[in-house]
Amino acid sequence: MRIGVDLGGTKTEVVVLDDSGVERHRRRVPTPRDDYAATLAAIAGLVDEAERAAGRCRSVGMGIPGSISPHTGLVRNANSTWLNGRPLAEDLERALRRDVRVANDANCFALSEATDGAAAGRRVVFGIILGTGVGGGIVVDGRLLEGANRIAGEWGHNPLPGPFRPDELPGPRCWCGRCGCIEAWLSGPALAASADPPVRDAAALVAAMRAGEPSAQAAFERWCDRLARSLAGVVNLLDPDAIVLGGGLSNVDEVYREVPRRCAPLLFADRADTPLLRNLHGDSSGVRGAARLAD
Amino acid sequence: MRIGVDLGGTKTEVVVLDDSGVERHRRRVPTPRDDYAATLAAIAGLVDEAERAAGRCRSVGMGIPGSISPHTGLVRNANSTWLNGRPLAEDLERALRRDVRVANDANCFALSEATDGAAAGRRVVFGIILGTGVGGGIVVDGRLLEGANRIAGEWGHNPLPGPFRPDELPGPRCWCGRCGCIEAWLSGPALAASADPPVRDAAALVAAMRAGEPSAQAAFERWCDRLARSLAGVVNLLDPDAIVLGGGLSNVDEVYREVPRRCAPLLFADRADTPLLRNLHGDSSGVRGAARLAD
Repeated sequence: MRIGVDLGGTKTEVVVLDDSGVERHRRRVPTPRDDYAATLAAIAGLVDEAERAAGRCRSVGMGIPGSISPHTGLVRNANSTWLNGRPLAEDLERALRRDVRVANDANCFALSEATDGAAAGRRVVFGIILGTGVGGGIVVDGRLLEGANRIAGEWGHNPLPGPFRPDELPGPRCWCGRCGCIEAWLSGPALAASADPPVRDAAALVAAMRAGEPSAQAAFERWCDRLARSLAGVVNLLDPDAIVLGGGLSNVDEVYREVPRRCAPLLFADRADTPLLRNLHGDSSGVRGAARLAD
Repeated sequence: MRIGVDLGGTKTEVVVLDDSGVERHRRRVPTPRDDYAATLAAIAGLVDEAERAAGRCRSVGMGIPGSISPHTGLVRNANSTWLNGRPLAEDLERALRRDVRVANDANCFALSEATDGAAAGRRVVFGIILGTGVGGGIVVDGRLLEGANRIAGEWGHNPLPGPFRPDELPGPRCWCGRCGCIEAWLSGPALAASADPPVRDAAALVAAMRAGEPSAQAAFERWCDRLARSLAGVVNLLDPDAIVLGGGLSNVDEVYREVPRRCAPLLFADRADTPLLRNLHGDSSGVRGAARLAD
């Protein structure tokens, strides 16, 4: 049995997987926003309840937005900003009296999909989240590659690669402080904001695109072109056996048709057929991957 | 015993390593330029001679400029252009009557330095060649990551990342057909050509820079800035435990001082201390890494 927690900005979820990957327990509660002590208590409560239902687990795996610095032990880069600067793993280990293994949520997504998801059996897997943010994770031979600074997979904070259109530089300001980050171009809100006039959200943009609205179609095409350029940069360096998409924009069918053909001419390969796969576990991928971190 | 061959554009070298990594035999001959049959014969002769001197080896490892497409089995992207389109591994397996494992020469460099070189004992290693071309290789847990299309590590054919100076776009034409590739900016010849007026080669530029010549100093600083931007893109995605430099420009001491401090502000990490290491095995790294491919 493996227990995983996905600590999101709005909801916290726990799952228990048996050795075959079957869910034995699942529960979701709202995340106590802006209250660190209540967040810790909510997680401890979820773990207690899960173990009463499904049996004791040795360690706990947890996915968080952001990561825990290996240099300080503190959470950083979480959009759930009340977690930043907190020794989350240490505090939970004390509360739960066992190992707690914390990883970035996009890393958990990649691990889940590489283990028994859309990319099961592939040696090198790049998993990406295209949602309110843009994250990523690398799995090699079934093991997560977290990186010396726990930033492996953070392609979202590399600058958008060229070839550039005249109006693409320096690019939109990113929350990380720099301009033109891939995340600042490819997130759902960025897609919605890129239409002329801007639309409410990415879902509205996709609906307008499908309804034949020219401005939405143009914005979606530019977004696909930028995603293709960004992915080409990953393939030329990592050349993964598969790329798996998660997050809200992974549900847009047109992505799987438009992006590979725009990516192909930018690759250094003689055959550009890196599979671009839709995730298998949907919203559950993050929490399932968190469980994969645990013993 | 492991036997490795480094098939370069101007010289072909063979080495036999014992199980401790000690060289038991080494020999270098000129590569028969523009003559594929003679190239095969030269390699077979070197292997025969090595085995007479050091004992029979089960398989042969070989590094080449370029790579063998997993889709066609043919050499591609070799600057030793008479190799391109040839079934080199197959032809050598027939001639030598055993397995021949061929990998890109920068991949061999990375494998050598990750195994018993400057980055020995590090989990994730990115090895780069800064010479007449710009190559790279990734080693994870002691194993080469060659990639589904055998292009893993080919960061040199990604576009130079920003932030851009006004005169950097679209960038110099690369032999691969695109503009602004990292290789087209960072190779030794590119460095030499970037001075105003251009100088003969990278060694001349470094000498002029050290002599205080302003144009050479400015060109070297721009080159360091571009290398830092390029490496930041790798660190934000792969976050390796170490980066090892090879090729002629790895001998320039100033690189190890100038590049890390320019790279640091571009990283998504809270502490930017990815070690930038000079290779340990010098010119022998390629052929030693080739031997590491063999049984």
